[in-house]
Amino acid sequence: MATLKVPSSVPPADEDSEQLRKAFAGWGTNEALIIKILAHRNAPQRKLIREVYASTYGEDLLKDLDAELSNDFQRAVLLWTLDPAERDAVLVNEATKRLTSSNWVIMEVATTRSPQDLFKARQAYHARFKRSLEEDVAYHTTGDFRKLLVPLVTAFRYEGEEVNMMLAKSEAKILHEKISEKAYNHEELIRILTTRSKAQLNATLNQYNNQFGNAINKNLKEDPKDEFLKLLRATIKCLTSPEKYYEKLLRLAINKMGTDEGALTRVVITRAEVDLALIKEQYQKRSSIPLDRAIAGDTSGDYEKMLLALLGHGDL
Amino acid sequence: MATLKVPSSVPPADEDSEQLRKAFAGWGTNEALIIKILAHRNAPQRKLIREVYASTYGEDLLKDLDAELSNDFQRAVLLWTLDPAERDAVLVNEATKRLTSSNWVIMEVATTRSPQDLFKARQAYHARFKRSLEEDVAYHTTGDFRKLLVPLVTAFRYEGEEVNMMLAKSEAKILHEKISEKAYNHEELIRILTTRSKAQLNATLNQYNNQFGNAINKNLKEDPKDEFLKLLRATIKCLTSPEKYYEKLLRLAINKMGTDEGALTRVVITRAEVDLALIKEQYQKRSSIPLDRAIAGDTSGDYEKMLLALLGHGDL
Repeated sequence: MATLKVPSSVPPADEDSEQLRKAFAGWGTNEALIIKILAHRNAPQRKLIREVYASTYGEDLLKDLDAELSNDFQRAVLLWTLDPAERDAVLVNEATKRLTSSNWVIMEVATTRSPQDLFKARQAYHARFKRSLEEDVAYHTTGDFRKLLVPLVTAFRYEGEEVNMMLAKSEAKILHEKISEKAYNHEELIRILTTRSKAQLNATLNQYNNQFGNAINKNLKEDPKDEFLKLLRATIKCLTSPEKYYEKLLRLAINKMGTDEGALTRVVITRAEVDLALIKEQYQKRSSIPLDRAIAGDTSGDYEKMLLALLGHGDL
Repeated sequence: MATLKVPSSVPPADEDSEQLRKAFAGWGTNEALIIKILAHRNAPQRKLIREVYASTYGEDLLKDLDAELSNDFQRAVLLWTLDPAERDAVLVNEATKRLTSSNWVIMEVATTRSPQDLFKARQAYHARFKRSLEEDVAYHTTGDFRKLLVPLVTAFRYEGEEVNMMLAKSEAKILHEKISEKAYNHEELIRILTTRSKAQLNATLNQYNNQFGNAINKNLKEDPKDEFLKLLRATIKCLTSPEKYYEKLLRLAINKMGTDEGALTRVVITRAEVDLALIKEQYQKRSSIPLDRAIAGDTSGDYEKMLLALLGHGDL
């Protein structure tokens, strides 16, 4: 389901590392070469390149990329080059800072990564920021947002497919009851959404639909502008069909007056090795134009080339 | 700080495994031999013995021990033989069951294990119970207890020694404010206790003492019988001086009319490889008799021998 394309025979890491060094040398930077290499290597390969680069030249590849590149292209390349766990740690950390704060980014990382990968992001957070991910999230959020986000980021959900149907029925009832009472921040509702396995949650939401004749997200539309309700709906979507959540995020980012590069970059970078092919399919279905054409229409230069490369374009 | 004694030259696991098999054979069980072996092997060694036993005899050593032994001795040997992470998973699981429910056991596992070991217990919980540890804790607790215990068990605290003194001062103030208002279940108080690193928490509690002239646990004694306040005080003790918490637990278990074998077994088994030597020292200081003599006076038979062996007695 990934869109990332890796050549059938990948050069050894020391060769890649040397090529990157050359791309930085002399007048100007060879952006095309940077894309050709980095946008066609998977996470373990990029990690190895970073290690070899550091041991060969005594410098951090990320620092050199940071110095050589700029703007949206720079951010895309830096985020992409980071190890996925470290990247998630960085994204959440930014999302807890005042100027770049985003409950959405925190929610995305907490819900769309596998339980094991979420834990790896928490480990990377320790190593990089000398604090725990949840202490920063808890400290920088308040009220209902904190009530939802802290258990989301600390969850280590069970991943098996086993489903308890009795429980699904009773918890669908609890959800419906709380939503009918407009108790959207009720601890039982939060408990169910933040602790149950995705398989169990799916069964519960199907039961909800069957018993009450409406999808839960329909019933959570009381006030379409309420920010907490929006986040709650998005959380449910991310837990059950992340590709639909990401498709919509891309659609809004592209259709916006002045593209939302932050969201566009984030989705392409974090999903290219995961499910971007699925998101692309979803996009084509929903918007009747291919995602790559939409992105090409809204972006330009090296930034455009980088995103399209991650979508599977370009020479290998 | 452990009391466990392992012989300088440990027999190979297949020999231990064969000896255990012999201890079960024929009329009666050779309990002394079981103690001689298992009570003098560390966690990786016991794990290896279990693996070799299973592959040699096609049976689970734990099942055979379960069948051969009984009562307090049985429980002590079974809990001891389990891998620490699996044991913690079992203890928490029992603690969420109606008949054996215990907020204290859940709190202990959440606070006195290292962050990494707590996570291993969560992984073991998945494997053994096909659910997440936190979903069972959240489901089986209510009110203030849930509010405290769920973030405690899901925490992955930072383990470094770095301390932010400004933060320690401001959070000491928040704690004092909430306690003065008797808002013991306030989300800010819970946030601080459940997310901060032990080093940071320590600094905050020292600040509390300096700024307000009282240890925080003194100020949490409003109503000495309030169960939530008791648990809150114990949580703070476990996070700052676990050996004092365990010393008191042992003292109460031994002095009780009819010893509390549940607590006695749990402390000896879970701490023998960690800090039981420290707890023992603390006990001697506080009660003026050695812990092993106190235990010998209150227990008997193989159960007594097992506990004393874990306290460092017996032939190697």
